[in-house]
Amino acid sequence: MATLEDLGVSAFINIVGAFVFLLLFAFLRIQPINDRVYFPKLYLARKRTHDQRGVRGVINLNLCTYLRFLSWVPGALRMNQTELIHHAGLDSAVYLRIYTLGLKIFLPIMVVALLVLIPVNVAGGTLLNIRKEVVFSDIDKLSISNVSPGSNRFFIHLLMAYVFTFWTCFMLYKEYSNVAFMRLHFLASQKRCADQFTVIVRNIPRVSSHSTSETVDEFFRRNHPDHYLGQQAVYNANRYAKLVKRKERLQNWLDYYQLKFERHPEKRPTGRTGCFGFCGRKVDQIDYYRARISELDKRMASERQRVLNDPKAVMPVSFVTFDSRWGAAVCAQTQQSKNPTQWLTDWAPEPRDVYWQNLAIPFFSLSIRKFLISIAVFALVFFYMIPIAFVQSLANLEGIEKVAPFVRPVIEVKVVKSFLQGFLPGLTLKLFLYILPTVLMIMSKVEGYVSLSSLERRTASKYYYFMLVNVFLGSIIAGTAFEQLYSFFHDPPSQIPRTIGVAVPMKATFFMTYIMVDGWAGIANEILRVKPLIIYHLKNMFIVKTERDRERAMDPGSIGLGENLPSLQLYFLLGLVYAVVTPILLPFIIVFFAFAFLVYRHQIINVYNQEYESAAAFWPQVHSRIIASLLISQVTLFGLLSTMKAAYSTPLLIFLPLLTIWFHKYCKSRFEPAFRKYPLEEAMEKDRLEHASEPSLNLKTYLANAYLHPIFHMFEQEDQKEETTVEVRIDKAQQQQQHHVRSSHSQYHEEESSITETHYNHQEERTSQVQYQYHYQHHHEENMGSQQSPPHFV
Amino acid sequence: MATLEDLGVSAFINIVGAFVFLLLFAFLRIQPINDRVYFPKLYLARKRTHDQRGVRGVINLNLCTYLRFLSWVPGALRMNQTELIHHAGLDSAVYLRIYTLGLKIFLPIMVVALLVLIPVNVAGGTLLNIRKEVVFSDIDKLSISNVSPGSNRFFIHLLMAYVFTFWTCFMLYKEYSNVAFMRLHFLASQKRCADQFTVIVRNIPRVSSHSTSETVDEFFRRNHPDHYLGQQAVYNANRYAKLVKRKERLQNWLDYYQLKFERHPEKRPTGRTGCFGFCGRKVDQIDYYRARISELDKRMASERQRVLNDPKAVMPVSFVTFDSRWGAAVCAQTQQSKNPTQWLTDWAPEPRDVYWQNLAIPFFSLSIRKFLISIAVFALVFFYMIPIAFVQSLANLEGIEKVAPFVRPVIEVKVVKSFLQGFLPGLTLKLFLYILPTVLMIMSKVEGYVSLSSLERRTASKYYYFMLVNVFLGSIIAGTAFEQLYSFFHDPPSQIPRTIGVAVPMKATFFMTYIMVDGWAGIANEILRVKPLIIYHLKNMFIVKTERDRERAMDPGSIGLGENLPSLQLYFLLGLVYAVVTPILLPFIIVFFAFAFLVYRHQIINVYNQEYESAAAFWPQVHSRIIASLLISQVTLFGLLSTMKAAYSTPLLIFLPLLTIWFHKYCKSRFEPAFRKYPLEEAMEKDRLEHASEPSLNLKTYLANAYLHPIFHMFEQEDQKEETTVEVRIDKAQQQQQHHVRSSHSQYHEEESSITETHYNHQEERTSQVQYQYHYQHHHEENMGSQQSPPHFV
Repeated sequence: MATLEDLGVSAFINIVGAFVFLLLFAFLRIQPINDRVYFPKLYLARKRTHDQRGVRGVINLNLCTYLRFLSWVPGALRMNQTELIHHAGLDSAVYLRIYTLGLKIFLPIMVVALLVLIPVNVAGGTLLNIRKEVVFSDIDKLSISNVSPGSNRFFIHLLMAYVFTFWTCFMLYKEYSNVAFMRLHFLASQKRCADQFTVIVRNIPRVSSHSTSETVDEFFRRNHPDHYLGQQAVYNANRYAKLVKRKERLQNWLDYYQLKFERHPEKRPTGRTGCFGFCGRKVDQIDYYRARISELDKRMASERQRVLNDPKAVMPVSFVTFDSRWGAAVCAQTQQSKNPTQWLTDWAPEPRDVYWQNLAIPFFSLSIRKFLISIAVFALVFFYMIPIAFVQSLANLEGIEKVAPFVRPVIEVKVVKSFLQGFLPGLTLKLFLYILPTVLMIMSKVEGYVSLSSLERRTASKYYYFMLVNVFLGSIIAGTAFEQLYSFFHDPPSQIPRTIGVAVPMKATFFMTYIMVDGWAGIANEILRVKPLIIYHLKNMFIVKTERDRERAMDPGSIGLGENLPSLQLYFLLGLVYAVVTPILLPFIIVFFAFAFLVYRHQIINVYNQEYESAAAFWPQVHSRIIASLLISQVTLFGLLSTMKAAYSTPLLIFLPLLTIWFHKYCKSRFEPAFRKYPLEEAMEKDRLEHASEPSLNLKTYLANAYLHPIFHMFEQEDQKEETTVEVRIDKAQQQQQHHVRSSHSQYHEEESSITETHYNHQEERTSQVQYQYHYQHHHEENMGSQQSPPHFV
Repeated sequence: MATLEDLGVSAFINIVGAFVFLLLFAFLRIQPINDRVYFPKLYLARKRTHDQRGVRGVINLNLCTYLRFLSWVPGALRMNQTELIHHAGLDSAVYLRIYTLGLKIFLPIMVVALLVLIPVNVAGGTLLNIRKEVVFSDIDKLSISNVSPGSNRFFIHLLMAYVFTFWTCFMLYKEYSNVAFMRLHFLASQKRCADQFTVIVRNIPRVSSHSTSETVDEFFRRNHPDHYLGQQAVYNANRYAKLVKRKERLQNWLDYYQLKFERHPEKRPTGRTGCFGFCGRKVDQIDYYRARISELDKRMASERQRVLNDPKAVMPVSFVTFDSRWGAAVCAQTQQSKNPTQWLTDWAPEPRDVYWQNLAIPFFSLSIRKFLISIAVFALVFFYMIPIAFVQSLANLEGIEKVAPFVRPVIEVKVVKSFLQGFLPGLTLKLFLYILPTVLMIMSKVEGYVSLSSLERRTASKYYYFMLVNVFLGSIIAGTAFEQLYSFFHDPPSQIPRTIGVAVPMKATFFMTYIMVDGWAGIANEILRVKPLIIYHLKNMFIVKTERDRERAMDPGSIGLGENLPSLQLYFLLGLVYAVVTPILLPFIIVFFAFAFLVYRHQIINVYNQEYESAAAFWPQVHSRIIASLLISQVTLFGLLSTMKAAYSTPLLIFLPLLTIWFHKYCKSRFEPAFRKYPLEEAMEKDRLEHASEPSLNLKTYLANAYLHPIFHMFEQEDQKEETTVEVRIDKAQQQQQHHVRSSHSQYHEEESSITETHYNHQEERTSQVQYQYHYQHHHEENMGSQQSPPHFV
């Protein structure tokens, strides 16, 4: 067990490490050459441009700025919440609130715990008086272990457990209510978006004589006659997307060789076609890549024809639009068909949030996928050591010597051998942990979620289970997860909280070190952005030719909810578990929350690019994980106290988890619907306001191509390149014919659309985006408006 | 342990008992005097009238009918399913399908088990050869216990477990699909009902300056402008209802004394007013009760005034009606308000299904009630022995002697004393078990469900938990539930299935006896209807004067889902658990299902009165309980095999529960929405059909008073008695004014209503029910149609 001195040394090292990182960051960020690494968000938002040339464009020569090296801190704090939401979206703003929530919960708890519990524990003095033979750490003198068994002092710990739980619940309630309000306010004050009027319909049944589009049209004309506006078919263009990626890779190489040739015009670059340029025949690289690209172009053109003409390329999914938010809200929340596995409706995610590859999965397959993945996650969490041990046994020195005998002389050197033998198993494990979030993301994709936001949320929850079992329980019980599982089955249930509870105070120093390494130094590493820094400069050296290339070489990244939410939740868990047991751990957590808040605020303002906007849809998860942490802390305390012979106080703890569960249920029914459903009151209000302010709006035009599959934007680019004559026309006759099919209630749309004719044409000219209806008119007769292009992919 | 002979004796006794009951029933049912006990349903449906007078009206003298004493069996089978649904409702028809499902599942399983498993078990022969010193029963030779540990024969049991599970799941899937189809078909072919157009709105917020009705009107006019029709306020008339009950009781006594006086005109009946007629002053009973009734009348009149005029008597609940099924379906399935705890909408239950007392419970209180009741149910299930033991300790002979010393001489007689000492504790327990369903029903009422059907479903699920723990586990582990709970916490989880698994085959004879006593004899008792028979004849003797009184003296009862569903589910559990272990139990279960099917079919056709129609809303519960039984059977088999050293076959069992859980999840998402939501496709189709067949229907009139609180029907009766002049008028001007407030979309209602004026008046005359708008017009300006009276309560 670590003494206070050990801990002090560890703290010193980590603080120095973090400080060095910060100094490095302060130095690097003011060099103009790194501008696009440390301020990509501002470039994307067109708030910053790189205009200085020459040396001044590479190195900062203004010495004054070196002195103000901590100037990023006030800069990060200056922006207020409204501006932040405007600048980086509600998701980011609410994400930062998790850190402030941590501060709000733990600061008062720390003050009370340090003032009340530390004196009680120290005065307990068992460790000093009785068990002199046992080796104990100084930290233990401050923890609950120092109180003598059977003491009445445990009533104070019990009282504190109640106080802390009530305080946490109170803050959680306030925060949930705040976030729910922010979400509703955000949705209400949001400007008009396509997703407000759109519903995603999955599992459209195939009717033999009809095309999917016709089936959808007919169904919604019949069942939503007053509000149905149109629909957007979804094409299965996954194969085409693959070809596009391949072409991009080839184009990169071509660019690279062309640049090389420009710099050294005396010799044309040559190389071999075989594996990694080692074998195969020798070719002129520029000619070779040109030929391959033109070949690929031909394949893409034929694939494109297939997608457009083959009815099988139309997937049984559709984005259905309505003439009002009310209509869309109604359709998204109700059951459409007698068969509840068909015509599944849900809110359409934002266009940029859609994960197109998963749209076509049928219901039955979906239910099997979910089941299999949940088994796989269970196996991954509890048995992940088995494949790793297997790989480790393969990747030993004998194995390597067999496969590659030529390295034997090197390996047999004693120093190298012992280093490798210690290093290889660790490397395998590190590699696994590094790719784990990617593996979990792939699992979530297999599960079939259709939006990026839900994919990240699902990944986060899988990762949380992994961390809970392998980091928290694994560190406390000190065994593999598999061994834990075995003991869960073979120990009596009443023994498990005891085992954990007894081990908790002993592991306090370990977790303090963990917080310093993973929390403090990790966050300082985050702000330095080593990996994007290196990759950006590499790209800059080899590929970048134009300003546009430089823009593409930027890698702003995103918050990465999938990884960050679970580790944040782990800190809440540690804080709540140790609040009563070893309160001296709390200051470490508070430093983490404060420091991480600053860093992430800075990154969100200057670096991360917002990939989508889910309007804080992840909050219910954050809330329930903190509740789960509360429950875990209560159970461990119960286990600990029951070994301390505190027979009078322990039974009083039973009400705490019951109250917590009730609180959770109440919050769930009180707030969660705000994150899952869209109230009709709200929808109607917004519709009415809009109708009053813009009575002549032509929604049909506005919504026309909002949910066009990204492939069509590529087609469009192709068309532009080939300089086809683009035809813009409004098929008025067709439109009218469609309206006649509807009931008399919706006739006013027709009038509206004829009134807003002029408006429509204006918009057309302004956006200057092309129409290309001539080609696949038969596929979607409804899409006749101006082109709304999703920001990613163009 | 019982031998085969013991079991044979028990079977003989029970079969004879059941046969005697059946003979008694056959004799009693053909006596005309019992006609109203054994055929009340037919009287209520006006399919049978009592017209014979004299001796022929009391005793059946036709000897031929005595010979055909089993004639009720073909009678019960004759009606086909469509007729049955028409005669007794879908709930009853689907309830009977549970029995046929039992037969469909267990008949093939029994055939396979008897042909395959019994030979395998008998040939195993361990018990005969090895363990001669152990006492074992003959039944055990046929069970899995007879196979020697570690034998490869267990692979056959394993295979059978898979086969039985697949067969059960297959039948469950088919049945769920059938029932879901029947439900949708029933709802689709149902004639027009008020509940199709009505949504119940709870937790209406109080707006200071508005009455509740105005708030509701305003809210729905704003958010459902195209489909909102009107609303029906709900009055808190619980106190008035109490007074009515009291008056009825007094009226009964008055009737009794008047009848007595008519029979013996020579002396007026007298009595004392004090407790039970023992003390107090002597009065003329007829005058006394007349005076008390007239006094009560006065109080009722003032209470009535209070309900009508006090704005606080209007509860924050309302029945909101729409002009189409589509509109109601939309409102019921969507979230209305930004605050998800306000404006909660749900399908309105049928008018006769509404449980009025629970309508006014606010959301917060509801969430606390649910929480507290779930704790109470847990306590009741596991600790019910504690209060009973307490009462038993009080109700011992010494206690009684102290309270009532005058009984001491009787008690001290030795025979009486020993009888009482054995009898009293058992009586306490019996009494508790007898009132248990009532207690559980009260608990469900406290939980705050608003319809009788959901109350019965909730009671059923509570009762199921009680039976599972106390009857099934209690009999197998042989200890109180509290002891079980203790061992659940203190034994390792892997031990529990073993403990249960090992005990299961040993308890087979016990459960066979249980099935015979509770199942066979119990069902025979059900058809005899001893209690209603006695009560009817008592009432007939003392109270009945007119034909209407006789009608009211009938007690048809109902199926009693709250008690019958759980015991049925217990039989499924027994069948599935013993199918692999001791297949000889299966014939007993099959006899039960077949016999009970016949009896309940007869009772449903001739006796039970349908209290409400929930369109088989209980089926998802039945389905998931059978799935739970499957899981329990798999876990116990796993535990049993793991003690049998069947190391190769046991691990293969792990996949079975996983597959079963997946099957359950799939069925849940595939079928359950059909029981919870109403698809828009369906609603639209029905709306369209109705619009085509009855274009001139005035829905407003039709729906006007469908959901009037029962109290108003009483008021109406009062009005009739007092012979007030009843004014029927249509406030045309007012109606028009209301329509003008609405959006232009709904103007066609107004035209419609003027067109259908004549129709409206016709209906008025036909139903010949009164309007009494003059009195509380300001309360609900919308209720101006003809009176629809709920069938119960008038």
